[in-house]
Amino acid sequence: LMQNRPLLISSLLEHAAAFHGDTEIVTRTVEGPIHRYTYAALARRSKRLANALTRLGVTSGTRIGTLAWNTHRHLELYFGVSGMGAVLHTVNPRLFAEQIEYIVNHAEDQYLFFDSSFLDLVERLAPSLPKVKGFILLADRARMPASGIPNLLCYEDLLAGESEAFDWPSFDENTASSLCYTSGTTGNPKGVLYSHRSTVLHSFAICQRDGFNLGAEDSVLVVVPLFHANGWGMPYGAAMCGAKLVFPGPAMDGKSIYELLRDEQCSFSLAVPTVWLGFFQYIDGTSGLQPATEIKLERLVIGGSAAPQAMIRRFAEQFGAYVLHAWGMTEMSPLGTSGRPLRKHAGLPLDQRIALQSKQGRVIYGVELKITDDSGAELPHDGIAFGDIKVRGPWIAAGYFRSEGGAVMDADGWFATGDVGTLDGDGYLQITDRSKDVIKSGGEWISSIDLENAAIGHPAVQEAAVIGVHHDKWQERPLLIVVRKPDATLDRDTLLEYLRPLVAKWWLPDDVVFVTELPHTATGKLQKSKLREQFKEYRLPTD
Amino acid sequence: LMQNRPLLISSLLEHAAAFHGDTEIVTRTVEGPIHRYTYAALARRSKRLANALTRLGVTSGTRIGTLAWNTHRHLELYFGVSGMGAVLHTVNPRLFAEQIEYIVNHAEDQYLFFDSSFLDLVERLAPSLPKVKGFILLADRARMPASGIPNLLCYEDLLAGESEAFDWPSFDENTASSLCYTSGTTGNPKGVLYSHRSTVLHSFAICQRDGFNLGAEDSVLVVVPLFHANGWGMPYGAAMCGAKLVFPGPAMDGKSIYELLRDEQCSFSLAVPTVWLGFFQYIDGTSGLQPATEIKLERLVIGGSAAPQAMIRRFAEQFGAYVLHAWGMTEMSPLGTSGRPLRKHAGLPLDQRIALQSKQGRVIYGVELKITDDSGAELPHDGIAFGDIKVRGPWIAAGYFRSEGGAVMDADGWFATGDVGTLDGDGYLQITDRSKDVIKSGGEWISSIDLENAAIGHPAVQEAAVIGVHHDKWQERPLLIVVRKPDATLDRDTLLEYLRPLVAKWWLPDDVVFVTELPHTATGKLQKSKLREQFKEYRLPTD
Repeated sequence: LMQNRPLLISSLLEHAAAFHGDTEIVTRTVEGPIHRYTYAALARRSKRLANALTRLGVTSGTRIGTLAWNTHRHLELYFGVSGMGAVLHTVNPRLFAEQIEYIVNHAEDQYLFFDSSFLDLVERLAPSLPKVKGFILLADRARMPASGIPNLLCYEDLLAGESEAFDWPSFDENTASSLCYTSGTTGNPKGVLYSHRSTVLHSFAICQRDGFNLGAEDSVLVVVPLFHANGWGMPYGAAMCGAKLVFPGPAMDGKSIYELLRDEQCSFSLAVPTVWLGFFQYIDGTSGLQPATEIKLERLVIGGSAAPQAMIRRFAEQFGAYVLHAWGMTEMSPLGTSGRPLRKHAGLPLDQRIALQSKQGRVIYGVELKITDDSGAELPHDGIAFGDIKVRGPWIAAGYFRSEGGAVMDADGWFATGDVGTLDGDGYLQITDRSKDVIKSGGEWISSIDLENAAIGHPAVQEAAVIGVHHDKWQERPLLIVVRKPDATLDRDTLLEYLRPLVAKWWLPDDVVFVTELPHTATGKLQKSKLREQFKEYRLPTD
Repeated sequence: LMQNRPLLISSLLEHAAAFHGDTEIVTRTVEGPIHRYTYAALARRSKRLANALTRLGVTSGTRIGTLAWNTHRHLELYFGVSGMGAVLHTVNPRLFAEQIEYIVNHAEDQYLFFDSSFLDLVERLAPSLPKVKGFILLADRARMPASGIPNLLCYEDLLAGESEAFDWPSFDENTASSLCYTSGTTGNPKGVLYSHRSTVLHSFAICQRDGFNLGAEDSVLVVVPLFHANGWGMPYGAAMCGAKLVFPGPAMDGKSIYELLRDEQCSFSLAVPTVWLGFFQYIDGTSGLQPATEIKLERLVIGGSAAPQAMIRRFAEQFGAYVLHAWGMTEMSPLGTSGRPLRKHAGLPLDQRIALQSKQGRVIYGVELKITDDSGAELPHDGIAFGDIKVRGPWIAAGYFRSEGGAVMDADGWFATGDVGTLDGDGYLQITDRSKDVIKSGGEWISSIDLENAAIGHPAVQEAAVIGVHHDKWQERPLLIVVRKPDATLDRDTLLEYLRPLVAKWWLPDDVVFVTELPHTATGKLQKSKLREQFKEYRLPTD
């Protein structure tokens, strides 16, 4: 039959080095200056790193932690650690210190590589991380600080002492390659353990025209952090096709992003909406820029949270750039859907196109996806029925690291994503809620997100949350909790009147409560579990 | 870790049916009229077929032969047969009858599905095919002929009697899915047995931007026959991304191709160069056409043999269409390289771009490729050194069906393709010869193909072949064998003088022989083995 070649991450790097050896990887370093080298150099340094790790006693399956920005050194860890058979554990430095401590200890990371930005954090945490044998600062000798961290090592010294010769080992493609913890809104973070197979298959998906359309003609600014679900798979996908990579380091402000896009003539970029708000603020507040000619963006992937329609429109009008809305999650490697148009959409007027782009995109091959009602029955693809989104496929988690949280798949292998949405006749997904936030009123579902979006449309509303509270007759009814804009005035009845023409009659919240602030997680997500706790005893007004 | 989902061909069809159910599949039928249906209908009929096969006693691993053009029915066989776990064996009807007999018997096909075009052929062959339990004509009841074929069945009757409900079985992704015999220039044809895994991975490759850039926005005219190396993977790749498929049936003349491209607004097409020669002849010889506005081709894949530069240029100038030169072979599923440009080629002047496009393209991820000298040492990527092309990867054959031809991989798993070529610094491959045709003169290699191309440039030359003949001092020296154009005059010395400035001094053929015709195989390949036999005793002139 066919050759029995395993799908290994090292083969991505070797392909890039052999056939795209001169293609650049550009980094704005933590120290500030721009660093440039090539895939050939990346391969050489990743091999030095693999030799260094071997010398440190790292073996197959050993977890190696990182607290690092998007830089060439972090990329070397991606390939060096996984390539040699160890497990790259990217830790989100934006988590609370106690969460980081929990995660590093739970993963039993043997070494922790970190950027100088996190020196204070690591100094504080080091005494509570007994399993970590060494802390490696991603810097050269000249920048090594005086520090009380035990076993502090210098990354560049480590590499300098090693050979560029290293034969990547061959092993079962189902071997673990990397580990990412999800920062849930409740409980301890849980780890998702990726395999070489899942990573390579996911790379094929993002290089597809109907994935991210990633190719050798691209110069890609990867703003999405490498500690967020593998940087949405970009390190691997870019190596697969030989795309030029551009990394912003810690500088994600509008000016820094603008300059990298301009100087590296980026055709493609991936980020959450917040980054682009800063980008446009910089453009609008700075004279002398020529955005329409200096910026060559052709397309963007915006994910993490929904991009406002105005943002999708502005990218189209100012740059002729196409915003691909994407949806996925850490448990999905992360890609599940991508907002590429269909053949029938050619020539669609901009307004209609933007409405289309505002959906979360079409399901890509490799992800089986269905929406189901409370009983588990599949719902139609009509763009109206919304239900629990369940997925299945070779790059979707079968469970969490160390079986935390127990079984996550049903008997037929479906993973409940915890998101709720609709599917239309063309396969476009629209997320309408989180499963635990959906309001179940008399057997019907009400989308808390739709209500929040409607409320935010009122000029006096700064932030809004909708939760379900107990109702004797309907089980649950929606309660709208609002933060007013500074100095704005707005009362309950005015806001409800505003909402009345915007939502179904039976969706109208039963009450409105005004508060001064809403609770958020460390990563900025609205913490509805706290709100539900806070309003547990809330009694809705009776008719 | 990650979910353990096998890569199965049935999942491609199920994805297309679920998320691209309305996308069309258009066929010019064997009978003439255009047939249209959708991926949803394809899935339903493939399930009917799977039920019919089950009723006929077909089980996992059973080989099912086809002698068929590119039609929706052939596509149903692609998914129905492989999906249920049997093996689709596409037989090339252009082979000599005795080769077809050998192939069907060697594969032990249990059923043979065929188009009415091949009724005479099947009637002749049937008595020599003792293993075939039934012959199914791909037609409806009204078109069933009176025929002496034993166990002749009607395809549409077979499907009409079955249910549309069929659960595709799940099994190991390394299970055999399809079988294709290569028509070598010597010896019996040898079978390449593909697996579900190799087929799905190859589909990921052709949907990549740097593969064939296949996507849901495409309408694809698949002229390359489905009996040639899986139709270059198109049935599977198109289902993976939901591309519209257009099939020409048996009509591959210029007029039929033109009309399908125009009527179905095709953006993409795949064919050998001969098809496009007919297409351009039709355009040039027909008044009233508006090719530049009627034809919407954006790109083409031309493979099988090299496309002339004039053809690449004409597609660019007349249609703004980009010709992707591709290289591969039946043993490679078939794709190995694709001629997508790199970032640095943006804005290249047309002449330089055409020179680039004339190469066979860049190596795609998933195929490891190297060129080696006689000793097996790897040669540099300098665009000059040429050597044996060796490949390795998960969609490359590990051997032939029933181990015919013995081991085909070396100790490190490399498969020698039998082609010879150069690799340049950007990873573009250029095929310079077949290994067995290269002329080894004093330890150096001379490309027979380069010499032939140079000779064909002379206006009086209709066809040319170069073979190596024995030389006492140099081991081998090139002999040029030429067919003159009708009524043209040309002698040895004139032709050698013509070649002198075009080739390296030591490449100049030692002699020229004029003949009235050259030997070819059933599929039109120059049969150099016969020429070598014929000129075995040829004595070169001595200086």
